[in-house]
Amino acid sequence: MEKVCVIGAGSTKYGKLEDSIADLAIQASVGAIDDAGIEPKEIKAGYISNVFGVADKQVHIGPVIMSNLGIPEVPSLSIESACGSGSVAFREAYANVAAGFYDAVLVTGVEKVNHKGTEWNTTYFSYCSDFFYEGGSGASFPGLFASMARAYLAEFKATEEDLALVAVKNHDNGLLNPKAHLQRKISVEDVMNSPVVASPLKLYDCCPFSDGASSVIICSENFAKDHTKDYIDVIGSGRGGSPAALQGRDHLTTIPSTKIAAEAAYKMANITPKDVDFAEVHDCFTIAEIIDSEDLGFFEKGKGVDGVREGLTKRNGDIPINPSGGLKSKGHPIGATGVGQVVETFEQLMGKAGERTVKDANIGLTHNFGATGASCAVHIFRRA
Amino acid sequence: MEKVCVIGAGSTKYGKLEDSIADLAIQASVGAIDDAGIEPKEIKAGYISNVFGVADKQVHIGPVIMSNLGIPEVPSLSIESACGSGSVAFREAYANVAAGFYDAVLVTGVEKVNHKGTEWNTTYFSYCSDFFYEGGSGASFPGLFASMARAYLAEFKATEEDLALVAVKNHDNGLLNPKAHLQRKISVEDVMNSPVVASPLKLYDCCPFSDGASSVIICSENFAKDHTKDYIDVIGSGRGGSPAALQGRDHLTTIPSTKIAAEAAYKMANITPKDVDFAEVHDCFTIAEIIDSEDLGFFEKGKGVDGVREGLTKRNGDIPINPSGGLKSKGHPIGATGVGQVVETFEQLMGKAGERTVKDANIGLTHNFGATGASCAVHIFRRA
Repeated sequence: MEKVCVIGAGSTKYGKLEDSIADLAIQASVGAIDDAGIEPKEIKAGYISNVFGVADKQVHIGPVIMSNLGIPEVPSLSIESACGSGSVAFREAYANVAAGFYDAVLVTGVEKVNHKGTEWNTTYFSYCSDFFYEGGSGASFPGLFASMARAYLAEFKATEEDLALVAVKNHDNGLLNPKAHLQRKISVEDVMNSPVVASPLKLYDCCPFSDGASSVIICSENFAKDHTKDYIDVIGSGRGGSPAALQGRDHLTTIPSTKIAAEAAYKMANITPKDVDFAEVHDCFTIAEIIDSEDLGFFEKGKGVDGVREGLTKRNGDIPINPSGGLKSKGHPIGATGVGQVVETFEQLMGKAGERTVKDANIGLTHNFGATGASCAVHIFRRA
Repeated sequence: MEKVCVIGAGSTKYGKLEDSIADLAIQASVGAIDDAGIEPKEIKAGYISNVFGVADKQVHIGPVIMSNLGIPEVPSLSIESACGSGSVAFREAYANVAAGFYDAVLVTGVEKVNHKGTEWNTTYFSYCSDFFYEGGSGASFPGLFASMARAYLAEFKATEEDLALVAVKNHDNGLLNPKAHLQRKISVEDVMNSPVVASPLKLYDCCPFSDGASSVIICSENFAKDHTKDYIDVIGSGRGGSPAALQGRDHLTTIPSTKIAAEAAYKMANITPKDVDFAEVHDCFTIAEIIDSEDLGFFEKGKGVDGVREGLTKRNGDIPINPSGGLKSKGHPIGATGVGQVVETFEQLMGKAGERTVKDANIGLTHNFGATGASCAVHIFRRA
């Protein structure tokens, strides 16, 4: 297996954007190519991550991106794994580079849905659940994560104010991220006073529907060394699955796919959770970040909430979580999110994260799942 | 690299089907698992091919399939490359097995769109073109392939009756395929008298919108030998791209991605087109099969039409093309099509194709593209 590296990253701002899905994808791709200092023709494949191309009338977006980059002959494909699409596309690109099929690959995630409105988004997003049992019965994602939140609050004596602390922290981080969708400081009171979406989750417990695109260039170590002295290594990669519907799981307060993917990634990287300096995790709802932080091994079961209460997951804490602002504040353009996490990790480890830089960070982890965690990918990166 | 084999195949009937997209995918998957004689738990990953899950309200279908197979922990993903999705999913599964990431993988393609009606289908399918230039200007796929047909007829002195011969041949083959969508014999007159869709293409020059699912089990050679004596080897795999919009191409009578993908596949297999005993090619419209047969090297440029006129591409001809009935008669459930081609190739090489068996076949080729060939994958198989 070849060692695999990330040598460039680019991203649009996340938010309600006017540009077309194709334009957003091309902007992020050009950004990553420029950042890597390579020529488009050095790219041997395009791994695109996108869920709802139908929203902006462009499915099969890979060839459109490659054609606009001036490399129409280069093969591409789109990968969908609901909200975890980006990390799964990254994983496939990783696998192809590690195996030697390609020496340099573009990974671009993109989504453009805001113009369709909240009803369309909530409805179509519910198609990513096990629709026969969940979406079709009216259980859209806020409702499903509310069930998980209720179970967690009851089992571990946590409060709604505890959940709010996750939102407050991530907004504090996002305030320092010029590309974040929701760049504003909020308080626990703001969260508590925001409208109930699905009790106990309120509006400020939920990430926004975002538009945006993120890209990275991943390549073999030889390719990296030929082009730059500044890059990061992919030292761990793991994937896992969970029962598609919540009803098929033994517990509501843990996500099996996260544990499976994390175990594989830690094993490959030959590290433990203690070695991780910061993590970008899938905080689609505040409760998710707490559960993730336990499933990833940063806290014992039921203790993730203490991590937030005690400020351990803040940017200057023991294990900073979502220094980018996370899905909650940075935003959640679902096809782009997992790639965006790699962009943040690259910028953090390369010392390009400005005011939100996590000090002395050497190892970063990304965790991104689809739906209520039916699919998941975890990656671990180290400064080369 | 590991040698990669196909050890089992399953497929639903193609047509206007009542079952849900999930049920179709599960039926085909169970069929392939049973055919391979393996246990679901031996499967290490699921590569799903699907384009319009939104049509039947189930996106992120991988975890639903894996959960229903009793292996929810196994990772899965969906791959989209328009009408070429199935072969691209197969390619990714191939790459992962070849690299040793997984020893046995389920590849399932599925589509369920008929219930949405022709207007929905034509509109949504046009999102797979370069929508800014093509679909958005009213150029849906029949129109785009009509442009290619006009150019071919003019350049090579071919006639509309020549195109009709492709449909007649493929319907003759499909008549012997119990899973084909359009199982009826047609004549050149039937084609010529059918309604004009986009001149010179008439209704019978066009493949149908189909529902259906197809699955194969692909695995390492060691895994294959541990489970069965009967399997086929993947001896060639290639991918390529073309300018997304027709206007970006130098010629309308050739598809660059086919040539790129085929060249790579032939090189890997260390064979020439003359060594191929039969091929399943992408005949979304009659003109496409003729162009494909030239781009794949079976005929010189402009001579593909002679192949049809002289009956060389019939089941008992020199180079049988689409013994299954092809997209034209077997049907075109777009996510399933590329996987279905592998199912046919497996059945042909294993002697399971009944009356439509190509005699003394040892090497089969599959060719499947997305849109007007913006993305393409070619695979070559040999009886083990």
